[in-house]
Amino acid sequence: MKIGILGGGQVGQALWDTIHMEKENILNILGEPLEIKKVLVRDLSKKRDIPKDFLTNNPDEIIYDKEISLIVEVMGGEEPAHTYIKRALEEKKFVVTANKEVIALHGDELHKIARKKGVDIAFEASVGGGIPLIKTIKEAMAVDKVKEIWAIVNGTTNYILTKMEEELRDFEEVLREAQKLGYAEPDPSKDILGLDTKFKLAILSSFAYHTTIKPEEIYTEGIEKISLRDIQYAKELGYKIKLLAISKFYNGEIEVRVHPTMIPLSSPLSSVNGVYNAILLRAEKRGDVLLYGEGAGPYPTAMALLSDILEATHTILYSVPRYYSFAYLYPSKIKPSDEIYTRYYIRLWVKDQPGVLAQIAKILGENHISISSVIQKETSEKEGKAELVILTHKTYEKSMSKAIEEIKLLPILEEWGSLIRIEV
Amino acid sequence: MKIGILGGGQVGQALWDTIHMEKENILNILGEPLEIKKVLVRDLSKKRDIPKDFLTNNPDEIIYDKEISLIVEVMGGEEPAHTYIKRALEEKKFVVTANKEVIALHGDELHKIARKKGVDIAFEASVGGGIPLIKTIKEAMAVDKVKEIWAIVNGTTNYILTKMEEELRDFEEVLREAQKLGYAEPDPSKDILGLDTKFKLAILSSFAYHTTIKPEEIYTEGIEKISLRDIQYAKELGYKIKLLAISKFYNGEIEVRVHPTMIPLSSPLSSVNGVYNAILLRAEKRGDVLLYGEGAGPYPTAMALLSDILEATHTILYSVPRYYSFAYLYPSKIKPSDEIYTRYYIRLWVKDQPGVLAQIAKILGENHISISSVIQKETSEKEGKAELVILTHKTYEKSMSKAIEEIKLLPILEEWGSLIRIEV
Ligand SMILES: NC(=O)c1ccc[n+]([C@@H]2O[C@H](COP(=O)([O-])OP(=O)(O)OC[C@H]3O[C@@H](n4cnc5c(N)ncnc54)[C@H](OP(=O)(O)O)[C@@H]3O)[C@@H](O)[C@H]2O)c1
Ligand SMILES: NC(=O)c1ccc[n+]([C@@H]2O[C@H](COP(=O)([O-])OP(=O)(O)OC[C@H]3O[C@@H](n4cnc5c(N)ncnc54)[C@H](OP(=O)(O)O)[C@@H]3O)[C@@H](O)[C@H]2O)c1
Repeated sequence: MKIGILGGGQVGQALWDTIHMEKENILNILGEPLEIKKVLVRDLSKKRDIPKDFLTNNPDEIIYDKEISLIVEVMGGEEPAHTYIKRALEEKKFVVTANKEVIALHGDELHKIARKKGVDIAFEASVGGGIPLIKTIKEAMAVDKVKEIWAIVNGTTNYILTKMEEELRDFEEVLREAQKLGYAEPDPSKDILGLDTKFKLAILSSFAYHTTIKPEEIYTEGIEKISLRDIQYAKELGYKIKLLAISKFYNGEIEVRVHPTMIPLSSPLSSVNGVYNAILLRAEKRGDVLLYGEGAGPYPTAMALLSDILEATHTILYSVPRYYSFAYLYPSKIKPSDEIYTRYYIRLWVKDQPGVLAQIAKILGENHISISSVIQKETSEKEGKAELVILTHKTYEKSMSKAIEEIKLLPILEEWGSLIRIEV
Repeated sequence: MKIGILGGGQVGQALWDTIHMEKENILNILGEPLEIKKVLVRDLSKKRDIPKDFLTNNPDEIIYDKEISLIVEVMGGEEPAHTYIKRALEEKKFVVTANKEVIALHGDELHKIARKKGVDIAFEASVGGGIPLIKTIKEAMAVDKVKEIWAIVNGTTNYILTKMEEELRDFEEVLREAQKLGYAEPDPSKDILGLDTKFKLAILSSFAYHTTIKPEEIYTEGIEKISLRDIQYAKELGYKIKLLAISKFYNGEIEVRVHPTMIPLSSPLSSVNGVYNAILLRAEKRGDVLLYGEGAGPYPTAMALLSDILEATHTILYSVPRYYSFAYLYPSKIKPSDEIYTRYYIRLWVKDQPGVLAQIAKILGENHISISSVIQKETSEKEGKAELVILTHKTYEKSMSKAIEEIKLLPILEEWGSLIRIEV
């Protein structure tokens, strides 16, 4: 059983190591040895764990090699990874990938090609590092129905929010530290703005609901506007702020969104700290199942790849039909984001004068939004200004947007603070 | 594909329902229909969801039926379930069971028979209800190595401890309420004394470490001696008390134990409340993976059974070799319980007079146990007595047992309170 690997970076090298270290174990499982024939890299002269003989900078040497029946893609980025995977599938090779961009953007196309050619594309490693998310959805939920997904799938943002909360430090400061420690990239915008989380939610939801959800259909907010004040208020009120990936599937309609969310301390997701990831699946019959673990790292990711590789090679060796392959089957109907129905936290600075709260309460009331609690603190921080925090009961996003537009026109508004959704 | 079910109680009926409701889904997955031919019960006249035509009170009608290739056992109890399963395997039938007693006590024997006969016995439903624990250990960890298991696998005791902590109520009172609500059995001793947890830990550890661990080899303490005072002190110190199933595998030696444990709030297991179950697997390469969900209930359990049924029928239909079956392979070496090395919480009542703490500290010191903190509160509750709480640094169980023996002989000791292990 010969395989090729596209990419010999962090993950590619961890996979190389693991396959060599676990040689006997793999032989026991498969009944024959698993051999890496070639690894694609850009720079042949770079120092790495993989011996030079096994390296190539020509993708065709792997994609069109007749001896290779499975290709692992760990290059990253949309192109040329997408094109290479497509070619490999068309050559009737099984593909295993860790590439969230490619799956989120082209999962449906690639699955169609795989089905037509009688092969498969597996992508456990694209979400949640070493946590077996896809496997659990695919197998444990095969005869169940996933109704909701609640997930923390970006280690960088979770690390930042955790640090801000634990050490009461500012976003910018914590971000700089995270960059220094290697928990955030030099250009952290994909993580901070929620794009990485959006890609992962597109993959998980498409897979769990047997449909195609495009990243651009997902309402997305990042954590860039979360201030320490919000985190402090949340703490005071018994909540934590997490960047959540949320999706729900009811009555044929899918609600799907990524945004900072206030969750109560009683939620099992509230104790997911630092770079850890977790996903809560709400299924019709199994009820809630939560999976938690290290969401990244070369070795956990290599383990996820290896699980997929073993499953695929087993399929190849014994030419059995794979018994579940529901991904990207049906069209989806996405619920418009202004129909989101949830609770809200609002923070704003107003003129410190009588009747201010009444004006704001009036606008909320006119928009059928009812207030569940209010905090107004004496402060000497800003002369003549008062900071107001309002928690609402459940309401529609549409009503809330309208109310906020109106509040923003009030002469008593000094400074807009923030709007954070609250979920239980 | 015809199957037989031994047992038509809560779980048996939920399985019957599910297989009928999900008929089409199952057909899609297997490529042919799954048909329940017969269900074994004791009392043919009892009212149940299963039509009378499908019932029998003669086990041989199922076990020796040539058309039936898979048998599901959901009768419960050690005998006659164990004997029936054995006969079924000897008849070369695949077996799927929810029976923790049978697997914990006879797992090795049954696996040996299954291997000899070229069939398999699956038992996902025996631990953790609808949480895919066994599947995750089997597949995600196939090429990894599980080094530690930390689990909350008994809903009854977790419910009681949670209620005591949240509502500051006594053990007895909460237990009675749990019985009334159906969260505890009329005879709750198997749960309360930790026996149910012990069975489950024997199963999980045998499976994860590819060995045989007998329940009687597991050091076990129940929650019957946990008082509200301990829970209050734990809370004050930033801990929760949970009945943990713990096992570790290092240097060829297995440490395995069940007891109430103080865990810090930062531990992801500390937020597992009520009847929920969770298991934390510490693996060599994947790192920590935690699985959490509903640990019981007829429908979650039926889903776990169905996953096993589908996997087994797939194996039968396509006669592929199953690609992992490591359970009960190697002999095990169990670490003696007096070599446990951990931190301790001690609570005791002493005479309220000078020099008392010094006497106790002296004994601890002589046994090489160092104190990490002490709480002594003024109390008017018991005339002339003071309550002392001591937290130690890590030490050996052997040293601690010796120290306690000596402390119990001190004339200044008024009343022994409790000893609880602290883990992080
Ligand atoms: N690192 C993690 O913890 C982690 C976790 C989960 C998922 N992932 C995913 O795993 C994938 C790989 O990540 P990584 O951290 O291993 O990345 P990396 O260290 O940057 O490695 C990328 C590898 O691909 C090669 N490569 C890139 N573009 C190429 C091209 N056009 N032609 C030929 N070779 C090319 C690079 O060659 P050179 O070495 O010659 O530059 C390098 O060997 C990404 O999709 C990532 O999102 C990573
Ligand atoms: N209930 C749960 O939530 C749950 C969760 C996880 C695991 N489990 C496990 O699943 C198994 C079944 O639990 P359950 O709650 O369904 O139990 P149950 O309601 O008591 O059902 C037991 C069934 O087996 C039949 N039975 C028992 N002994 C028999 C015998 N000697 N001969 C013929 N039939 C016999 C009974 O027949 P009659 O109906 O005629 O009495 C009944 O139909 C147990 O191993 C349990 O530990 C249960």
